[in-house]
Amino acid sequence: MSDIFIGIDLGGTNIKVGCFDNQLKLLSKTAVSTGADMGPDIVIDRMVETIEKLLSDADLSLEDIVSVGIGTPGPANYRQGIIINSTNMPKFKNVPITKMLSNKLERPVEFDNDANVACLGEYVCGAGKGVRDMVFFTLGTGIGGGIICDGRLVHGCCDNAAELGHIIIYPDGRLCNCGQKGCVEAYASAGSTARRAAEAVKSGAPSSLKKLLEEKGEITCRDVYEHLENGDELARRITDETARALALLCVNMLHVTEPERFVFSGGMIAAGDVLLDGIKKYFGELIWKLKQETVQICFAALGEDAGIIGAAALAKKIC
Amino acid sequence: MSDIFIGIDLGGTNIKVGCFDNQLKLLSKTAVSTGADMGPDIVIDRMVETIEKLLSDADLSLEDIVSVGIGTPGPANYRQGIIINSTNMPKFKNVPITKMLSNKLERPVEFDNDANVACLGEYVCGAGKGVRDMVFFTLGTGIGGGIICDGRLVHGCCDNAAELGHIIIYPDGRLCNCGQKGCVEAYASAGSTARRAAEAVKSGAPSSLKKLLEEKGEITCRDVYEHLENGDELARRITDETARALALLCVNMLHVTEPERFVFSGGMIAAGDVLLDGIKKYFGELIWKLKQETVQICFAALGEDAGIIGAAALAKKIC
Repeated sequence: MSDIFIGIDLGGTNIKVGCFDNQLKLLSKTAVSTGADMGPDIVIDRMVETIEKLLSDADLSLEDIVSVGIGTPGPANYRQGIIINSTNMPKFKNVPITKMLSNKLERPVEFDNDANVACLGEYVCGAGKGVRDMVFFTLGTGIGGGIICDGRLVHGCCDNAAELGHIIIYPDGRLCNCGQKGCVEAYASAGSTARRAAEAVKSGAPSSLKKLLEEKGEITCRDVYEHLENGDELARRITDETARALALLCVNMLHVTEPERFVFSGGMIAAGDVLLDGIKKYFGELIWKLKQETVQICFAALGEDAGIIGAAALAKKIC
Repeated sequence: MSDIFIGIDLGGTNIKVGCFDNQLKLLSKTAVSTGADMGPDIVIDRMVETIEKLLSDADLSLEDIVSVGIGTPGPANYRQGIIINSTNMPKFKNVPITKMLSNKLERPVEFDNDANVACLGEYVCGAGKGVRDMVFFTLGTGIGGGIICDGRLVHGCCDNAAELGHIIIYPDGRLCNCGQKGCVEAYASAGSTARRAAEAVKSGAPSSLKKLLEEKGEITCRDVYEHLENGDELARRITDETARALALLCVNMLHVTEPERFVFSGGMIAAGDVLLDGIKKYFGELIWKLKQETVQICFAALGEDAGIIGAAALAKKIC
């Protein structure tokens, strides 16, 4: 019998599953479509079948599993192991996923939100390796986060800590989807960066993005960074504001949990050095001068595998 | 032999010492002047004499001590037990206080900064009792802080976490002593509240504080809250801005560590309900509407004893 840990990244589109040894070395992985519209029972059966197949391909069986970790987007009650509801999986309402999965697999199941799990993955095996204090950001449609203090994930009193996209950086500023005004998410997520560019074009700012907007009817964050590369002045201003907002977020988080490293992840980091260099530049300008800060600001290293690796680390109760 | 824990609150003016049983019940306490200008050797001798006297008054001796905790203002290297330097004790430079005190007392000595120690005191025996996640603010000349996550003090990678006064709430705003612009400390500390009032009066805002400023040459934070009570409109505006700035701080901290309770301490809480109610009002206005927040916002309960109680809790390694 081997000491196998299973990591599951449950999303609205795909279920990703990884099989790990007790050193958290990835032995094999796979992804299947979630089929969320079939409802939780069938999705959970599909998860179990996927795990069985993955194990059998490696001449292993369910009995080789020590424990299983799973990450999903919230809202969920992670301590009780219940998905309360899910934007991408409308049939998931008050689903006791931990218990259901644990009953099928006859193994303990650990459960946390997708951002915490990806944070844990980067902490254990990726860009956060070697530090004890780290802050992790996901830059996608919104901005999510994860915090590790002295080697432990910060959950908060009700599992809603690290909602880092909703730190207010510009009071009375842009309205955020959450109802607050001036959240960093309303400025610096991929969605908001694209939205700010489209608004500026519509209000008459000269830009090479104008033609694109007219043709496609929308602008993506990727478009903005591409036009920046081609020298567009509006794209420069918009991406500059994104970098400054993220730098403000880093300054504030440094004064709260004082991480040794900030790790940015999510689709938007495809923008590359221009994004990272911008954040670093503004961080240097905005941070206090009382002492020299040595915090590192970097991109995530694990890509799409962060979720399954973090879920396996969760299973292994590393944090 | 009794199980005695000693808590020391070392300030520039006074050394406060408390003697506690192993349930952290305060048995006796005293305060003596620090005599900081005599240098660290004499101050440490004075501490030891004060502890001995306190114990002997209770028919106890140094041998009854299990361990000792001490809190001081920074900058210090708390892990190594060294006071690097001190604004209020200029002769304290690179003083290995933990080792010096431990050698004299022949007992282990635990050391942390004064805000963390007071936070710990409130957490164990005061306004934070009964919760596992709390954020603590000190409102004085500046704004300090302490954070407890899942029952543990957050120190950060280099012992500089919880510098909560330097969270930027208004980018490009008022210059803070730290060199950043728009820190909450530059708006909502006792010092800044008084300063904003004086600036407004000097720039011609009508106020009953004008006469006071002319007579005394300065305005204190206490003056501002007194004139608020007497219906002064400028005092209302200034204290309103203070409350709003502190509410912004709470909104942001809720999204970071999600405490169950915010505890405000320091001289400024003498302003009473008008301050607390203002913070709560703006918190309700500013916080997101995604869910109903139930976090409590309250004042500290231990007054000046928080330091010695927290230091004893530190000695007992409760966090």
